[in-house]
Amino acid sequence: MTNRSVFFVSDGTGITAETFGNAILAQFEYEYRHIRLPFIDTITKAHQTVEQINACYEKEGLKPIVFTTLANEEVLDVVSRGCKGLILDMFSNFVNPLETEFQTKSNHRIGRFSDASKSKAYHDRIEAINYSLAHDDGQTQTDLDKSDVILVGVSRSGKTPTSLYLAMQHGLKASNYPLIPEDFERQVFPPALLPHLSKIFGLTIQPERLSEIRNERRPHSRYASLENCKMEVLEAESMMRRYGVRWLSTTTKSIEEIATTILQEIKPERLIY
Amino acid sequence: MTNRSVFFVSDGTGITAETFGNAILAQFEYEYRHIRLPFIDTITKAHQTVEQINACYEKEGLKPIVFTTLANEEVLDVVSRGCKGLILDMFSNFVNPLETEFQTKSNHRIGRFSDASKSKAYHDRIEAINYSLAHDDGQTQTDLDKSDVILVGVSRSGKTPTSLYLAMQHGLKASNYPLIPEDFERQVFPPALLPHLSKIFGLTIQPERLSEIRNERRPHSRYASLENCKMEVLEAESMMRRYGVRWLSTTTKSIEEIATTILQEIKPERLIY
Repeated sequence: MTNRSVFFVSDGTGITAETFGNAILAQFEYEYRHIRLPFIDTITKAHQTVEQINACYEKEGLKPIVFTTLANEEVLDVVSRGCKGLILDMFSNFVNPLETEFQTKSNHRIGRFSDASKSKAYHDRIEAINYSLAHDDGQTQTDLDKSDVILVGVSRSGKTPTSLYLAMQHGLKASNYPLIPEDFERQVFPPALLPHLSKIFGLTIQPERLSEIRNERRPHSRYASLENCKMEVLEAESMMRRYGVRWLSTTTKSIEEIATTILQEIKPERLIY
Repeated sequence: MTNRSVFFVSDGTGITAETFGNAILAQFEYEYRHIRLPFIDTITKAHQTVEQINACYEKEGLKPIVFTTLANEEVLDVVSRGCKGLILDMFSNFVNPLETEFQTKSNHRIGRFSDASKSKAYHDRIEAINYSLAHDDGQTQTDLDKSDVILVGVSRSGKTPTSLYLAMQHGLKASNYPLIPEDFERQVFPPALLPHLSKIFGLTIQPERLSEIRNERRPHSRYASLENCKMEVLEAESMMRRYGVRWLSTTTKSIEEIATTILQEIKPERLIY
């Protein structure tokens, strides 16, 4: 099947156009060629965009799909009049019913991130990333009371990517602590965690999958052996059960799904959008 | 102005519904109360969703705004028939024209991240996060040839959050190296970087802003003083000019804007969606 060209045209970063476009395209079993056109914020760039899309159409003989999030009406007008692709415009379809409901005109603001660098929410998000990095892998026990969530689990169960995602996407301060053989012997969580049980969320994983992941890093090691992985997972799960902390298995889940589930359970008061 | 309640209803994580909804809402000068309802994937949950939205309407006397990305038509049907909010459904508006263009039916797949944990792209993305973490702040010089991009800049110019964002969002292996006083004295980039000049991208920042950021960390230090920040920025910029590397100022930019600009300039061959 021919790859269909898909353009994401935005006057901002194009992240919204892409997220939105990819979700729609996932409804079809096609292969796509992605072309991002961010920062299309002048009439001149609008005309260049039209030329590029039409040249693509001439060459491929198939209508390019064009997802747009253009707040500037003049720019959108140039693109939608001139372009021979199939335009799927996010704003015109949804802004109009909201204007009616709110009984007000939209402000045609460009991009959800404009001037973001000056906002409190953005500042807090950068702080959260720094915090989560400093508190990765049990590196420090200072300021644990400032954590919004503390992830625990065996090595390579998905704690680090999930912590960073929670910080980056949701502005949460996420710490993570590995559960290691010493903890299993003592049969207790690392003592620094005990005052913060309500913020702890456990990650577990199927031993078979864990062994695969660890073998990529340290092939044929005892650390990566199925036998050892089975033992660690069993111990970690029984410890999480004993403390009554909430947990989930990351085996078939993406970071996004893990993070969404954690948010539902932990319900942090502070949530940045 | 009364806060308007906004629901994000999805059969997956709801990330698409939120990204999409927030971009639309940014067109209006309103305050919103966000309620996420992810994983709404059964008829029972659909009915619960309707109840929750309608209870909110009764209480507040204002129509809640309801952004939906529901691939399951039965679930969508229950929500859109029963719910008294203003429904803005992403799929029905855009999937239909694509079905016509592609001359095929959509597959009504749930969520862009479904089964993501098994895919090569997902695996590569996790690898990229691990790589970028290991190569943060010049921690290691090994495997620099595997970097898709190498960020350089003075301390606190935005390298770390940008690297992690490039890894998490785009699956790129991003290293970053601080430019420090020793580099300025020797007037050369850290030697390990020299074979990789084509992958280097510089971040700079206004000295006044840099001094503010550094003062939050180390108040009244020489490191944070405006005089020192001016000197470091001047030296770093002149070094980037001398090597002819591309660079931008992060002063008023969000991570997303910085990352988008870097991608436009570096155009890495490998880009994961």
